[in-house]
Amino acid sequence: MNAAQSYAAANHERLYAQLKDLIRIPSISTQKAHDADVQAAAEWLAEDMRRMGWQVVEIIRMPEGRHPLVWGEWLGAGPAAPTVLIYSHYDVQPAEMEDGWETPPFDPVERDGRLYARGATDSKVNVMTQLKAVESLLATEGQSPVNLKIVLEGEEESGSENINAFAARHLDRLRADICVISDGGIVAPDQPSLVLGLRGIVTLEVTVQGPARDLHSGHYGGNVHNPIQALCEILAQLHDANGTVTVPGFYDSVLKPDSTERALLADIDPWYDADWQRTAAAPQPWGEAGYSIHERAGIRPTLEINGMWGGYTAAGVKTVLPSLAHAKISCRLVPHQSPDRIYGLVCDHLSRLAPPTVRLEVTRQDMGAPAVRFPHDTRAVEAAAAAYREGWGKPSIFEVAGGSVPIANTLQDAAGQMVIMGYGYKGGQNHGPNEHIIVENFGRGIRTAIAFLQTVGECR
Amino acid sequence: MNAAQSYAAANHERLYAQLKDLIRIPSISTQKAHDADVQAAAEWLAEDMRRMGWQVVEIIRMPEGRHPLVWGEWLGAGPAAPTVLIYSHYDVQPAEMEDGWETPPFDPVERDGRLYARGATDSKVNVMTQLKAVESLLATEGQSPVNLKIVLEGEEESGSENINAFAARHLDRLRADICVISDGGIVAPDQPSLVLGLRGIVTLEVTVQGPARDLHSGHYGGNVHNPIQALCEILAQLHDANGTVTVPGFYDSVLKPDSTERALLADIDPWYDADWQRTAAAPQPWGEAGYSIHERAGIRPTLEINGMWGGYTAAGVKTVLPSLAHAKISCRLVPHQSPDRIYGLVCDHLSRLAPPTVRLEVTRQDMGAPAVRFPHDTRAVEAAAAAYREGWGKPSIFEVAGGSVPIANTLQDAAGQMVIMGYGYKGGQNHGPNEHIIVENFGRGIRTAIAFLQTVGECR
Repeated sequence: MNAAQSYAAANHERLYAQLKDLIRIPSISTQKAHDADVQAAAEWLAEDMRRMGWQVVEIIRMPEGRHPLVWGEWLGAGPAAPTVLIYSHYDVQPAEMEDGWETPPFDPVERDGRLYARGATDSKVNVMTQLKAVESLLATEGQSPVNLKIVLEGEEESGSENINAFAARHLDRLRADICVISDGGIVAPDQPSLVLGLRGIVTLEVTVQGPARDLHSGHYGGNVHNPIQALCEILAQLHDANGTVTVPGFYDSVLKPDSTERALLADIDPWYDADWQRTAAAPQPWGEAGYSIHERAGIRPTLEINGMWGGYTAAGVKTVLPSLAHAKISCRLVPHQSPDRIYGLVCDHLSRLAPPTVRLEVTRQDMGAPAVRFPHDTRAVEAAAAAYREGWGKPSIFEVAGGSVPIANTLQDAAGQMVIMGYGYKGGQNHGPNEHIIVENFGRGIRTAIAFLQTVGECR
Repeated sequence: MNAAQSYAAANHERLYAQLKDLIRIPSISTQKAHDADVQAAAEWLAEDMRRMGWQVVEIIRMPEGRHPLVWGEWLGAGPAAPTVLIYSHYDVQPAEMEDGWETPPFDPVERDGRLYARGATDSKVNVMTQLKAVESLLATEGQSPVNLKIVLEGEEESGSENINAFAARHLDRLRADICVISDGGIVAPDQPSLVLGLRGIVTLEVTVQGPARDLHSGHYGGNVHNPIQALCEILAQLHDANGTVTVPGFYDSVLKPDSTERALLADIDPWYDADWQRTAAAPQPWGEAGYSIHERAGIRPTLEINGMWGGYTAAGVKTVLPSLAHAKISCRLVPHQSPDRIYGLVCDHLSRLAPPTVRLEVTRQDMGAPAVRFPHDTRAVEAAAAAYREGWGKPSIFEVAGGSVPIANTLQDAAGQMVIMGYGYKGGQNHGPNEHIIVENFGRGIRTAIAFLQTVGECR
């Protein structure tokens, strides 16, 4: 172990306690009630960054954004050294006990070597792994082997308007030789993996109105097209029996995978298959015929219903024939699919499917984000593989991930090379109840992140 | 006006204030949190009945029931006088501001000659109209022209277990020459109507489980049959394009209406058509071909989705692929359809429709109730028509109503003749937001209820 890595090991308890402190702040970016918590998390991070010696620390809120960026610069490695831009996000998904949490989601609890809490894996472990790697370098060597920029987003789970506005007006500040996206995780607790692509996303909400007001289902049932039924009839037509999305034009720009790509990605198949059995554990598999589980998640687009509601949903019976029914839909996109075009196609299809007995309204929920994809043989990806080997003692395998980082496409444009390094793992229940990390992997992660910056710095 | 009617007119303000006092008690029978309120409403009624001189007043809770009956007897008219059993219910449907109420649902507010509150029309106006008619008779003449029994139910909106248990063991106490069901209302504020039948009901809840837990829709989307989608696919198959229920056997015992019946019921068609335009006001009509709006509501059975929910339903975006999706379903039944048999047929059909990629579970929500139907030319119905003419100055028209009174079938068995007399009106938004009565009709109703008892008493 070099000095920085020794520092991280010696200070592990303190660094781990800091991770838990950050997790305790319920920085849910999609719920207005938590706006102050998101701000508090930003300030907590800025304070920690100032303490560890970043030269520039700013909390940046653009007029269009609701939640600020935390921005940092340490540019003391000199003009000949490469510049690395680190991206992660400190906002989290909503979480309620009744979703199935065993312990309160914002009270981090360690059980059996795992730390359970909302945001643990998505993405506060990544934020803190990166920051504590930098702290370890600055505290022991007084400097970093590379020039550093870091941008920590507070709206990754809610549309990324602030960082999009920042990038639109200040793309120069994001310029770097290598961009490290630190989000997500590895495929299994003991198997590092390197993500070569992320799906894009576009989200929308559909409202169907039937009668002008909620009605007594005895008095009016049989004479009104129930909006829940109408919405079911519409949504039931969005996939065919093979699991293929029926929206006309949806797959127009999707490339067929070539055999080289399929071979490169096939090593991870057993991990994906095992994780499906363990985590999804549905009664039977479902999905597009002709693709592996990993391929369906990584290189095929989807249309998913994330929520639906209408009528009486509390305990007991209420014989209402409701006026309104609603659904939240998201599409995951692959390279060459435009969020705007897919949104338009889905809207058109929904409008065509809506019968004349109801009114249908679609509202877009975010700006959307295109997918990203990059090669596996760049120097950045090779440095990342070497770093994971140092942290985990194993070679990495390659993955194309199903999740999205809305700003990734813009960051790819601003950087020469891109690499995605996460320190959660695939079974960590991001977005679900009992989200967690493997505690040991926080330490392995800091060691990996230090090794990555040192490897990149040596390659100058 | 006779003495009893003069009493009701002279005391109108006090009687109306009492109606509002009863309405303020949020006696929601389907929600455990309101159990004490249901009990309070029962005690409020028993106290009022003791004050006005009923000979027997009891609050009766059977071991099977959650909410008590309020039972009253006044049998001083002598053995030669007929016995009238009055039925109504004092429990109400749930109500929340966010359903679209303009004023708090349990704070009765008068605007433009209407009184707005949950329970105003369904069915506290009926409870109080009947009680205040009896009070008017006892206060002025010291007696009633007929022997009286009254049973006020606290579980009409939640399965009627208490009254069913009471009827099963004490049917004798319910015996009468005439049973007056006082629930529902007339077809329009100024047009009295007499209901000759009520639909039955059976309710159930469906749960579909896909994955074992809530998942990240990016990581797992495309590989799991989303339970919301699966439930939509199932529910979308429950009606064909003509609005006919597709459950095999659903219509097996439903009689085709004969031309005499259709002619008797046709007078009310314009009222139903106008009410549909005004109250339902959906973009286009919907329903079984070949039947009028009144016929679809009164003589045809239905299957209705009263509620559906799954995934993320709060504000903003949460890209979850949920484990569970749920729907509440009710079927309205016509004569000769058995609730048990229809429940079984619906269960079987749902199970057949469920794909092997999900687990489906159905739970019955109530005991169900068969429909009731009785002739229009009995002495009881003729007395009711005469009474409405006295209250409203107009002849009544005939109706077969779409709503249900779960105990009606049992009461029909216990009484020689049956009549249904309600004092709300069809546009009064029962079960919906901004439920209301026409204030003037409370006075007209008491006058009608007095006239009915007097007419029946004279016919001995």
